[in-house]
Amino acid sequence: MTSTIFDFVGDNSGEWQVTSMTAYKGNPIESVSHLTKVPLGDLSQSEKGIWSFKGIISNLRYTEKEEKDKLTAIQEDLGRKNATLAAFIPIRKSETWWNLAQDERRKIMESKSKHTQTGMKYLPAIARKLFHSRDIGEAFDFLTWFEYAPADAEAFEELLDTLRKTEEWTYVNREIDIRLKKV
Amino acid sequence: MTSTIFDFVGDNSGEWQVTSMTAYKGNPIESVSHLTKVPLGDLSQSEKGIWSFKGIISNLRYTEKEEKDKLTAIQEDLGRKNATLAAFIPIRKSETWWNLAQDERRKIMESKSKHTQTGMKYLPAIARKLFHSRDIGEAFDFLTWFEYAPADAEAFEELLDTLRKTEEWTYVNREIDIRLKKV
Repeated sequence: MTSTIFDFVGDNSGEWQVTSMTAYKGNPIESVSHLTKVPLGDLSQSEKGIWSFKGIISNLRYTEKEEKDKLTAIQEDLGRKNATLAAFIPIRKSETWWNLAQDERRKIMESKSKHTQTGMKYLPAIARKLFHSRDIGEAFDFLTWFEYAPADAEAFEELLDTLRKTEEWTYVNREIDIRLKKV
Repeated sequence: MTSTIFDFVGDNSGEWQVTSMTAYKGNPIESVSHLTKVPLGDLSQSEKGIWSFKGIISNLRYTEKEEKDKLTAIQEDLGRKNATLAAFIPIRKSETWWNLAQDERRKIMESKSKHTQTGMKYLPAIARKLFHSRDIGEAFDFLTWFEYAPADAEAFEELLDTLRKTEEWTYVNREIDIRLKKV
């Protein structure tokens, strides 16, 4: 069975080398030189390291049928050989966001901020994966992970820049931007 | 801070006395005489007992603004003195359900099965609380908890009967129905 629970471990050695770490919004986290994504059997397990953040893969919570079909048709998995660059971006959204109803959040994410549409524009080049952390009592709400080839580095900056200018992003109150290079 | 992580512990003694246990759909679980709802600090903690199931309180995932406002206005919290009866009903939904997109699930739950509307009809008498278990690798997807006064026992059976006849319920492939009486 494929694991759905992961620990992202920052340490002095590991799978990915950290090329930059920026506290884009809110308090920073301790600097590390490497990061490893470790599948866990269950949530009671914990990896060592300078720090670690757990996240779980869940069902899609906003994506509608038509979008889901398009995504499934074009997105690619993590772990492609040529995807030697990655970004690990833990984010937290405000209480105001979480107190909104489902249709209000969907409206801000899609009708106004075009989150899925924007991401889709960069598929399959920029592979994305979302890990949920809020419900399991972690410091961040989401751990977002992106993987791409060096040739698509510029496109990735464009994607990130577009998302950060959306109305949805005004609800993000903590965001750490960690860039990585495959060891 | 209020806990959002709970362990429901079945044992030989506890907070609630088990008056009946029925495997309504799928495999049964071991019989116990008592059940206790224990708040946990984090998911690495575990309670002893004959069995225990963990669940977390999360944001509302389908409720729209208008429904949310109505619910907030009339629902009451767990723990009312006269609510001496309870039901603990762990359920699991099929993979077919989880592979549906958000709008397809919402359509089945609300437009067709009127889940929220039905529950609302029995508020504030039947207090309800939903605990999420699927994403944390538990045996069930949801642990549902109901509390009511003996005078509302008949209304509770009616509510349950209505929900079980919906299209939504055709996706439930495991359901244990445990009835409880405050010790």
